[in-house]
Amino acid sequence: MAASVSPYHLIYTDWNLIETEFDHAQLHHKETVFTIGNGYLGTRGSFEEGYPRAWSATLIHGVYDDVPVVYTELVNCPDWLLLSVSIDGESFRLDRGEILSYERKLDLKQGILSRKIRWRSPSGKTLDIYFERFASLADEHVLALRAQVTPLDFDGLVKVSASLHGYPENQGYNHWEWIDQGEKDRAIWLHMRTRSSRIELGMASKLLVSGTEADLQVTSVPGYPTIETTLRVSPGQTVTLDKIVTVFTTRKVEEPVRASQDKLTQLTSYSQLQSSHVQAWEEAWQQSDILIEGDTKAQFAVRYNLFQLLISAPRDDERVSIPAKTLSGFGYRGHVFWDTEIFILPFFIYTQPKLARNLLTYRYHTLNGARRKASHYGYKGAMFAWESADTGDEVTPRWALPNQPYAEDIRIWCRDREIHISADIPYAIWYYWQATNDDEWLRDYGAEIILDAGVFWISRIEWNPKQQRYEIREVIGADEYHEQHVNNNAFTNRMVQWHLEKAVAIYDWLCSQYPEKATELQAKLGITPKQRDRWQDMVANLWISYDSSTNLIEQYEGFFNLEDIDLTHYEPRNRSMQAILGIEGASKRQVLKQPDVLMLLYLMRQSEEFPYNREILQKNWDYYVPRTDITYGSSLGPAIHAIWHRI
Amino acid sequence: MAASVSPYHLIYTDWNLIETEFDHAQLHHKETVFTIGNGYLGTRGSFEEGYPRAWSATLIHGVYDDVPVVYTELVNCPDWLLLSVSIDGESFRLDRGEILSYERKLDLKQGILSRKIRWRSPSGKTLDIYFERFASLADEHVLALRAQVTPLDFDGLVKVSASLHGYPENQGYNHWEWIDQGEKDRAIWLHMRTRSSRIELGMASKLLVSGTEADLQVTSVPGYPTIETTLRVSPGQTVTLDKIVTVFTTRKVEEPVRASQDKLTQLTSYSQLQSSHVQAWEEAWQQSDILIEGDTKAQFAVRYNLFQLLISAPRDDERVSIPAKTLSGFGYRGHVFWDTEIFILPFFIYTQPKLARNLLTYRYHTLNGARRKASHYGYKGAMFAWESADTGDEVTPRWALPNQPYAEDIRIWCRDREIHISADIPYAIWYYWQATNDDEWLRDYGAEIILDAGVFWISRIEWNPKQQRYEIREVIGADEYHEQHVNNNAFTNRMVQWHLEKAVAIYDWLCSQYPEKATELQAKLGITPKQRDRWQDMVANLWISYDSSTNLIEQYEGFFNLEDIDLTHYEPRNRSMQAILGIEGASKRQVLKQPDVLMLLYLMRQSEEFPYNREILQKNWDYYVPRTDITYGSSLGPAIHAIWHRI
Repeated sequence: MAASVSPYHLIYTDWNLIETEFDHAQLHHKETVFTIGNGYLGTRGSFEEGYPRAWSATLIHGVYDDVPVVYTELVNCPDWLLLSVSIDGESFRLDRGEILSYERKLDLKQGILSRKIRWRSPSGKTLDIYFERFASLADEHVLALRAQVTPLDFDGLVKVSASLHGYPENQGYNHWEWIDQGEKDRAIWLHMRTRSSRIELGMASKLLVSGTEADLQVTSVPGYPTIETTLRVSPGQTVTLDKIVTVFTTRKVEEPVRASQDKLTQLTSYSQLQSSHVQAWEEAWQQSDILIEGDTKAQFAVRYNLFQLLISAPRDDERVSIPAKTLSGFGYRGHVFWDTEIFILPFFIYTQPKLARNLLTYRYHTLNGARRKASHYGYKGAMFAWESADTGDEVTPRWALPNQPYAEDIRIWCRDREIHISADIPYAIWYYWQATNDDEWLRDYGAEIILDAGVFWISRIEWNPKQQRYEIREVIGADEYHEQHVNNNAFTNRMVQWHLEKAVAIYDWLCSQYPEKATELQAKLGITPKQRDRWQDMVANLWISYDSSTNLIEQYEGFFNLEDIDLTHYEPRNRSMQAILGIEGASKRQVLKQPDVLMLLYLMRQSEEFPYNREILQKNWDYYVPRTDITYGSSLGPAIHAIWHRI
Repeated sequence: MAASVSPYHLIYTDWNLIETEFDHAQLHHKETVFTIGNGYLGTRGSFEEGYPRAWSATLIHGVYDDVPVVYTELVNCPDWLLLSVSIDGESFRLDRGEILSYERKLDLKQGILSRKIRWRSPSGKTLDIYFERFASLADEHVLALRAQVTPLDFDGLVKVSASLHGYPENQGYNHWEWIDQGEKDRAIWLHMRTRSSRIELGMASKLLVSGTEADLQVTSVPGYPTIETTLRVSPGQTVTLDKIVTVFTTRKVEEPVRASQDKLTQLTSYSQLQSSHVQAWEEAWQQSDILIEGDTKAQFAVRYNLFQLLISAPRDDERVSIPAKTLSGFGYRGHVFWDTEIFILPFFIYTQPKLARNLLTYRYHTLNGARRKASHYGYKGAMFAWESADTGDEVTPRWALPNQPYAEDIRIWCRDREIHISADIPYAIWYYWQATNDDEWLRDYGAEIILDAGVFWISRIEWNPKQQRYEIREVIGADEYHEQHVNNNAFTNRMVQWHLEKAVAIYDWLCSQYPEKATELQAKLGITPKQRDRWQDMVANLWISYDSSTNLIEQYEGFFNLEDIDLTHYEPRNRSMQAILGIEGASKRQVLKQPDVLMLLYLMRQSEEFPYNREILQKNWDYYVPRTDITYGSSLGPAIHAIWHRI
């Protein structure tokens, strides 16, 4: 088994990521890297015993709550991990005593995170301690962790406390109100409710001890139910503590505490839970694995990314989708962007179409939010949120508010202008349909999205009588360095044109295949044959700024008149070009945050549609790549450049 | 002893406020009403045993931390109150079982809050439970509470847990990072640090049990150190539990944990602590009591308000001041407004001048913040913050941000325009000096404030060449219903004119009495004899919109041209006129949120200066009172109307 070394004390094999040393400066970064999950929730790789300033988090799909400025965020749920170990009064903590050896391992194949430490306490007692944990892929409401403690050089008392931690926080903010907690047959439970969205959560837990006699006691500090036990141990003797946790919310059941208690009662053995979990992962990988031989780095990298997608995708919920930072942290507040449809979805379409369908059906359930957004802006139909959460209403913050008393507030324009999302979603639906032939889903869900977003475009597109063409003005394209007076962005215009072509096709398909549904949607969305003709007219006359003599596509009207830039002059750098030039400075120059024309070419490549061809690609690659801030611009950039780089 | 009844299940005597029934709908309101404090901290009247959705809070002067939108807020500190009692496994909680009798009493004379309950548990066991608490006025770092439990009809086990609760929150936000906690001689301690301002706090506690044998145990859930004991009790037997707590922060000591431990060691008896506390209150009342005979309602009301002021005023800290909602809750985020100097200060000037001096010295320490604010707006000198916190930088929020995705953000203009604060503070300083003859303080602190705020006015006041007069344009006066294009607000202009008169006087006084200090401040603030002349010129030519033919003062230029209003047409109502008419609607009408011209007359009454005289008062009273939203406008209104009402 080949192993490669990376910075950050990480090595990897085909299936495993191994951290060989603990560095507290990387605490939060590694918590993200070692996230586990099961499509229902994600749990960051924080330590069971806690660590000062840790950002421990368990995020459950769809559990949102109000928060200032960004409207709503995915809520950090009670922490199920906590298991503290103290020997003769000394607590095991990595910021105390001495770490004699350390290894943390994420096993992608089995979905198990483990950690093995040899630790010497401040007073000189040495022990081996081993942790492993998983969020069951076989039953999404089940979480389990195992701790094994082996004293090496002392007889003594080991005190273990296994808690449910009801004061979780989203970087300071605790969304939960405590309702109640208690004990039942030496199992603990906790009942909480989110502050504004009023989602109730029930969590229950028990502790199974093997390897010695154990007397369990429950302590009931409010919000922090804890099972405690004190064990007498001798050198070389290993005690095993299995903490099993169940969790439900009122998003799925009426009585989440009872559901978690009932479920917990059925779970009798850690190893049984683990084996069903491992088997579920085996099945998932059978469908989704990508094999790369002879290149461990590439093999591991691909699998690590597939793993991240698999643990984030809702398996049993069509009212949630994958947020921009998955369920691994607080970034982007759990809001869903175009990333999901355009970057993530293809993987699911081709390997787990049921999960792809869940993700797309989420957009169907947010249609009313998209309609409210359209209506707020004075448009018709469905104008999808640039950032979407539980309802589909727009939750992009309006402002970046600095905390310095005299700094200027910065208006964020994406909610108003980054409207290509309303063509991106139809794009994803179309290719889901092409790959699966899922006519029923298209009829019952997808068609309404494509058509009602098409209705939006009719009200949004402008006719320019002077130029005798349709135009889309005042947008933000894929490239977010330009957000003022961006008219006729080629990416947006072509995606919309493409969308309206498909809207016509689907309208015709419905009329011929499912006339009843066609009639229903005509009535519901107010679509008439005249509007179908309007779409066709728009398809024919929507302007795309393409110059056939040069094969160059102008990113938007006037882009080529902006001041040019040579990015090599700014190298070496460790900041984005926007940070270097300022928002105004970047917007006045031909510098891109992420691919825009090349992004369009990537999307049109799939069916080899206009403007995709090799020549246009080559010309525009040569023009735009040197002007794109691929290193510090956007994480959405490199993948698109990489795809063309192979060609 | 006469007793009167009020709504809210409250009765009062000369010295006591008594709640006769518990109504959970009034939970938060009563927590505020039953706040105690000692000038170092305030603790809301939340229950020792906890209650669902309680807003328990202990706010320590000067412990601020960053928060979005409003920049900084007074931080809710670890809760020292928690003491839970359970009998044979049933927790005493007012939302469980049956309340057979209930009385909560705030004794203003002694500064002690107590509560007496007869309670029957869900399983039918009856007990009497009595709590009392105080924040020592004799030693501001000492807090104490006593619980007495008497079973009436059962033998059994009473379990008591006394905790320090390290997850306090400012309506969701927890400003604290846990550093450490522990046990020392069966006393517990907690070490925390604020997230951004990096203020460390140490809190320590011990539990003294009398009336039975008790074995104390410490449990150490992270962030929640707890002393537990289980007591065997019989009917009629009373056990007494005294929880003593000490608290320090790095605002005053370097090692707050050690300081709190050391202090705790010195404290041996609850009754001793209580008697020094009661004696300190006796002294405070000797200086500050106001006696009203024959009117219990008025007597109690005055004493209750004096009590609120006395528990909020920093006794040993000149770098903090009294926030608009004192230390009793989260309203206005612990920010300090003109309320302190104009409404609160006179009481202290005349009864506790040392405390008045502390409050004014706070403004001296915020001068650099006021200078940064002036400089940010392009002015000179000291432009005081409309809302001020630890540094004196402006912390008024710029925006009211609704959480509804499509609602409009509302710009708050007070930070930019409500500039009369920079004359209000000099006003307060002047009358502190008049009452105390504290020349040294004026020389070392007060003069610099008055002069540098005077420098600010020179840069802020405009010369109107057409009218040949000085003007102050684009302000918000005392009345906050008018905030757009308010020019030459009479209140502001006259206060500024008054301030500049006094600036000249103090400049001259310094030059004659303390020429060295005068030279120092001339150099530091850039004040020249020419500028002194400028002040005199401004005093002479600053326009006040007073019409001597009618005796009416126009609130600001053009106010009398606004649409008139008859407020009786809107009665009965239960909302402010701004809520009824909208911000725009109120601003276009002659309706006042709070007294403005009458506020000016109140302030000028003190030395019977222009425009105060009986005739002007009568005329303006008749004009403005019917146009003022005195019921739902501002809590700053009624006191001013009431003063004139007597005349």
